[in-house]
Amino acid sequence: MDPSQVKIPPMKDLTVDNITENVIRMNSLCEDERMKYVLERLILHLHDFARETRLSSKEWMTGLQFLTEVGKICSDVRQEFILLSDILGLSILVDSIDHPKPPNSTEGTVLGPFHTHEAQEMSPGDPISHDPKGQPLLVVCTLKDTQGRPIENAKIDIWETDSTGHYDVQYADREGPDGRCVMRSDKDGVFWFKAITPVPYPIPHDGPVGKLLKVLRRHPFRPSHMHFMFQKEGFDHLITALYLRNDPYETSDAVFGVKDSLVVDQGKAGPEYAEKYNVSEDHALLTYDFVLVSDAETSALRERNSKVALDNLGRKVKIVNGLPVPDLD
Amino acid sequence: MDPSQVKIPPMKDLTVDNITENVIRMNSLCEDERMKYVLERLILHLHDFARETRLSSKEWMTGLQFLTEVGKICSDVRQEFILLSDILGLSILVDSIDHPKPPNSTEGTVLGPFHTHEAQEMSPGDPISHDPKGQPLLVVCTLKDTQGRPIENAKIDIWETDSTGHYDVQYADREGPDGRCVMRSDKDGVFWFKAITPVPYPIPHDGPVGKLLKVLRRHPFRPSHMHFMFQKEGFDHLITALYLRNDPYETSDAVFGVKDSLVVDQGKAGPEYAEKYNVSEDHALLTYDFVLVSDAETSALRERNSKVALDNLGRKVKIVNGLPVPDLD
Repeated sequence: MDPSQVKIPPMKDLTVDNITENVIRMNSLCEDERMKYVLERLILHLHDFARETRLSSKEWMTGLQFLTEVGKICSDVRQEFILLSDILGLSILVDSIDHPKPPNSTEGTVLGPFHTHEAQEMSPGDPISHDPKGQPLLVVCTLKDTQGRPIENAKIDIWETDSTGHYDVQYADREGPDGRCVMRSDKDGVFWFKAITPVPYPIPHDGPVGKLLKVLRRHPFRPSHMHFMFQKEGFDHLITALYLRNDPYETSDAVFGVKDSLVVDQGKAGPEYAEKYNVSEDHALLTYDFVLVSDAETSALRERNSKVALDNLGRKVKIVNGLPVPDLD
Repeated sequence: MDPSQVKIPPMKDLTVDNITENVIRMNSLCEDERMKYVLERLILHLHDFARETRLSSKEWMTGLQFLTEVGKICSDVRQEFILLSDILGLSILVDSIDHPKPPNSTEGTVLGPFHTHEAQEMSPGDPISHDPKGQPLLVVCTLKDTQGRPIENAKIDIWETDSTGHYDVQYADREGPDGRCVMRSDKDGVFWFKAITPVPYPIPHDGPVGKLLKVLRRHPFRPSHMHFMFQKEGFDHLITALYLRNDPYETSDAVFGVKDSLVVDQGKAGPEYAEKYNVSEDHALLTYDFVLVSDAETSALRERNSKVALDNLGRKVKIVNGLPVPDLD
């Protein structure tokens, strides 16, 4: 790049106190307004972090080496930076920001690293798990909009571990998908299937993130849960999960995903469900009524929240492609 | 780790507004007070960054993929995270925090990634560069303390690029160190050597950091400079550099390293230096008087700055191993 082509405000003599505004000015030629705003906040917080901790050169180097190790261990089947984001509470925060929910809808939670795109589409009542050691569980759910109207033909991804707490993709020698499926809701919004009772399991903790958890004296466990992902045109994508009540890790999830509204009691089928779904009366049962939010309602809520957040910073906001940038006009 | 052994405050139902305090509580069992404080500030700023930008899930993923690429390209001879820290102004900021300088001393600047530990110890007047295309430059310096007393027998690392703007280590086929040396100051604090006139050069920009610079419409160049590193018992380690005045990149250094007090005029030897150092009168000359700060003075200044910084956060400070932690007593 020819420097004479690039106009940058002159800068020199940068100190602890003026470096931040100058780095932000150095990035001021960026033509992507959103990128420029994101970088501005990134630099401000990165610098404030160093100033407030009085970060030493040695600690800085330890931090950079840690990030290097996190990058090095990433592979096609492992994303250690997502894991790091998960245990720092960033993943659940970003999900909450990007997918705001009105009070009468199903809350979202962390996606986690084990969703795949290879699950088979199954029919109502099909077994999604073939682990003979799992406790058989009947799952019966409904899907509605915030007005209580059934949502038909939504694409629903469901995934869970086997009885040892491992997802299919964690086995090098697996033959195909198991413990996961894609279902469609029927005209009444109902979808149902046979699964196994979820069990708690540790997130991968043999890498740098595991080492960090150890230094912080934190355990790596997630409470028993089953993942659900809903896609239907006109509705905001919902990534969520159901958690079993009274799990030993219910209030200390390593990735901060548990929400009271997503904690469920596993019950027994009883006479009604036993007859309707052809299982014994004491067969384990899990039921849930999911509620999706429309795209329009989500966008409106997201924009409203953006305006409040930038207002708190004393900035006028302009929404570009659904995301806020400061309005300089 | 047995969860019953680990006491964590119960947490659930984490929202955009309460996630931060809860993640900080989750880390509260960490026994290293300094680590706990650094993580507290890291989590606070990471979360505020997401809240203030209303970071989208897509942007979050783009960011994590970028960091993964930065980690992947790191090797024994390339540290892309240092480069990223450099172009975000973090490196120079951390140096300024960790090595505070009183007004009458030589300022520090970025180390950069090209210092090595293999430079040969040379005698006064030796040539440190063997590039026949470089412009010969006589460098004559003194080293003193803040009271003006000469510092004898300090270890001084000096390194510069060749005339094409490349350090020796950037050549796969190099035979040994060149453009670098270790010198010792004499009883008058003097050290002198023959070098070549520094030239501007780009930082490595064929990786993810280079891509980022491009999006930000920033050039990757550093102005012409020569690196110096001083070590002497009882004095704070000084990492610095001298920059040539009127370099095209003097006020837009890609890594924010230039300070006015480190910008020098390259002159001519003239009759006095010509006779004393046995060069022609029009031989290029660079002179500089470096001033080191004592360890004691640096520690006192660092602690004073730490107290001010934590005071600004409304926290009482306790200094542990030279670094601040909040004092809860």
